[in-house]
Amino acid sequence: MAQETITPRVKDYAQWYQDVIAAAELAEPALVVKGAMVIRPHGFAIWERMQADLDRRFKETGHQNAYFPLLIPLSFLAKEAAHVEGFAMEVGVVTHTGLRAVDGKLEVKNELEEPYVIRPTSETIIGHFFAKWIDSWRDLPLLINQWANVMRWELRTRLFLRTSEFLWQEGHTAHATHEEACEEVARMLDVYRDFAQDVMAMPVIRGRKTANERFAGALETFCIEAMMQDGRALQAGTSHDLGQNFGKAFNVTFQNQAGVREHVWQTSWGMSTRLIGALIMTHSDDGGLVLPPKLAPIHVAIVPIYKNDEERARVLPLANKVAAGLRDDGLVVKLDDRDSLKPGAKYYEWERKGVPIRLEIGPRDVEANVVMAKLRIAPLDANGRPQKLTLKLEDLGAQIGRLLDEFQKFLFQRALDLRSANTLSVDNWKDFVDVFAGENNSKFVWAHWDGSGETEKEIKAATKATIRCIPIAGEGPPPEPGLCVKSGRPSAQRVLFSKNY
Amino acid sequence: MAQETITPRVKDYAQWYQDVIAAAELAEPALVVKGAMVIRPHGFAIWERMQADLDRRFKETGHQNAYFPLLIPLSFLAKEAAHVEGFAMEVGVVTHTGLRAVDGKLEVKNELEEPYVIRPTSETIIGHFFAKWIDSWRDLPLLINQWANVMRWELRTRLFLRTSEFLWQEGHTAHATHEEACEEVARMLDVYRDFAQDVMAMPVIRGRKTANERFAGALETFCIEAMMQDGRALQAGTSHDLGQNFGKAFNVTFQNQAGVREHVWQTSWGMSTRLIGALIMTHSDDGGLVLPPKLAPIHVAIVPIYKNDEERARVLPLANKVAAGLRDDGLVVKLDDRDSLKPGAKYYEWERKGVPIRLEIGPRDVEANVVMAKLRIAPLDANGRPQKLTLKLEDLGAQIGRLLDEFQKFLFQRALDLRSANTLSVDNWKDFVDVFAGENNSKFVWAHWDGSGETEKEIKAATKATIRCIPIAGEGPPPEPGLCVKSGRPSAQRVLFSKNY
Repeated sequence: MAQETITPRVKDYAQWYQDVIAAAELAEPALVVKGAMVIRPHGFAIWERMQADLDRRFKETGHQNAYFPLLIPLSFLAKEAAHVEGFAMEVGVVTHTGLRAVDGKLEVKNELEEPYVIRPTSETIIGHFFAKWIDSWRDLPLLINQWANVMRWELRTRLFLRTSEFLWQEGHTAHATHEEACEEVARMLDVYRDFAQDVMAMPVIRGRKTANERFAGALETFCIEAMMQDGRALQAGTSHDLGQNFGKAFNVTFQNQAGVREHVWQTSWGMSTRLIGALIMTHSDDGGLVLPPKLAPIHVAIVPIYKNDEERARVLPLANKVAAGLRDDGLVVKLDDRDSLKPGAKYYEWERKGVPIRLEIGPRDVEANVVMAKLRIAPLDANGRPQKLTLKLEDLGAQIGRLLDEFQKFLFQRALDLRSANTLSVDNWKDFVDVFAGENNSKFVWAHWDGSGETEKEIKAATKATIRCIPIAGEGPPPEPGLCVKSGRPSAQRVLFSKNY
Repeated sequence: MAQETITPRVKDYAQWYQDVIAAAELAEPALVVKGAMVIRPHGFAIWERMQADLDRRFKETGHQNAYFPLLIPLSFLAKEAAHVEGFAMEVGVVTHTGLRAVDGKLEVKNELEEPYVIRPTSETIIGHFFAKWIDSWRDLPLLINQWANVMRWELRTRLFLRTSEFLWQEGHTAHATHEEACEEVARMLDVYRDFAQDVMAMPVIRGRKTANERFAGALETFCIEAMMQDGRALQAGTSHDLGQNFGKAFNVTFQNQAGVREHVWQTSWGMSTRLIGALIMTHSDDGGLVLPPKLAPIHVAIVPIYKNDEERARVLPLANKVAAGLRDDGLVVKLDDRDSLKPGAKYYEWERKGVPIRLEIGPRDVEANVVMAKLRIAPLDANGRPQKLTLKLEDLGAQIGRLLDEFQKFLFQRALDLRSANTLSVDNWKDFVDVFAGENNSKFVWAHWDGSGETEKEIKAATKATIRCIPIAGEGPPPEPGLCVKSGRPSAQRVLFSKNY
């Protein structure tokens, strides 16, 4: 039973987001488990496509998957000072095993000597095993990735964007030199950028986090930041230079080629089911989910059109033949031959679920050897209605393939245009405050900043805007010195400000 | 740093098993997390291949993947009486969130109003959501699968076979009739049988569990049972007919076509990382891991042979060309060009890791346009040494492909022959006791049983043998009535006895 109506974006963006998820049956709040969600089949199918593409990229860059324990001894968390401070408030803690019935009620039974925390991230437990596995420079680099569930008990949760349990991948690597580790950090940031742009059709800006926004325990955190339709930023992936912090905390050492023992240099990097939230807020509209073809669980929905059994008998064989042909071409096709629904209701359903192309096949199409195609977002025709294309049956797979390619590019360009239209450079404090005035106003603002954490906090307190990143070379406006938009003190380059998710 | 020596099977089978795992770097005990393990890259790569094949089979039979919460409210477990009894002792319990430092030591902070258990299996939480999603007969059947981690705190653990945390898939389906649910139970049992035999090269017997061995909350549990090299049985997969037990506990109802509300009929079925243990104990030998080609992360290891730089310069180009050609043919190839190891050490390493085919390329092979191939298990030549095959470079991929196919079949047949040689029918108690006398003696024994749980327990107490299954039609000896091997009371058919993992 899917949600039937979708609140328009202009009316209530947050409600629209929830409605799109409900209408497409992507996920729902678990309710009985605080802050957790259930990922329903249509949502999970999108995640599977993300996983497959990312996993291929990780393997092509030399990484291997492994699996480490869900539970982490409490004492491990305490070994890296900044790390425990960053995560202590958010962890779930396992204190007992076993249950017993007392007066007909279940109670906990055996108390553990040392409690375990459910992993909020795995640097500590993986550091422990890296120390066992690494002995010599020959064992380096060690390039590991893990696909796993993690838990962070946060106060305010939101489907996909922030849930107490979420699914992610976490890369963990160890290197002989800091230089090599930095190369890895940059390489994986680029893998994330390519995935976001080429697969999710979501333009991103690569940059470095300020000290305030850094991963707990990292020397530097790099990120990709995307603009959502409401002008807010969403951090879509992070890549951390951990330096020797965890290497020292867990005594991960190697004998270098000169025979001297040194601590390894580590990195970690992650992307999560949060990306599905980013996908929704980048492309979807008031009609529901919009999916880039490269992540669509269904590429083509075929709706046969008939008024009676005679027409049905003429139309269905062609619909089946078309479906089979497209499947042979490697497309995922849904032939919607339900008699219980009218074509309009079917259109509506596949639209809400974000299927990129709908094919309609009626009796006249059978005679003319054509099908009618409609893209999920189509230009309007002369009558102001979404344009439908007449496609010949011959070479249909290739025609559909081209339409999907174009649609993928169209979505990226549309998102890029939206970002361009909502990005500006600001040089004085009054203009800066104006951009972010009002609860729901946000843009991407390139402004000078004096590099102080104090100033950063003052700006946030005044405007709710935060520094999303300090752009790396090639991102944002050309670097030029200037004066901080808040303090007036000198600044080496503009940084990216925005409200964020 | 892999384990260098492997204890021979005849000396200590349990130690041999651990040594094979260590030598192939498949996994290791976590130690710092009681009963848990780390699955290392080579072990995880095998699991990924199992997952990919099973996932394809699940989707081909109409199932969709989804993801449900890791944590389950304590009260949910209590809703199905048999279920809570079966799992209460084994669950991990989350009682708190957050940590705080007290006198420099971390302590738990916020107590939860209701504790959560970490899922030992997900019938309860999934039942809760099925109740929300199912309203009409049109919503049925609902066919869901989940890939997840689960926890069962058991006293005695063993890598892969029994660990406190393990990875698995759990199928959960809901149907309008018991008949349809039973068809699903049988269908998935056959999917498991096909996977075990065709992919793992592991012969299995399909059957029904006795009431004592049934899943907690099921009407019937079906299973596939495989014989390990030491004659013990290993349950490799289970498929449960849950009847309406969970439907009633979680009030999962639907309106049938006559407009009447009924409880759904449910099934669940699962396979886990335990299969990797089964794989090891079906095929491996004193030289280490043996893998069926369909699950081997590396199909071919190429070892170039040279004595000096001049030979190296002649041999390596051909080795690279052969590797590239085989990769084009879809094979996973490791070209071992490490200068730090002698060829013999390399042979030994790839053997321990279970690579099905090793290719050796030396200077004379370059001149003769051939490579030398050795299968992981090769027949002995006239001198009593493992046979090496001379393969022409032309059409090498096809030749290797045929060798891999034959090796896959050879492993299945060898396992089947071992099982046949260690399976017997027994009709009197003295012979029965003799078969199982001694800690390490086990076989598959077909014997009559009177159908009573009491007798079953007596047999187990006397011999440590348990009823692995009551065979379904087509498995085991032709059904014929007889007298119980223990009590002498009437029996309708023979059942399968064995010691088990």
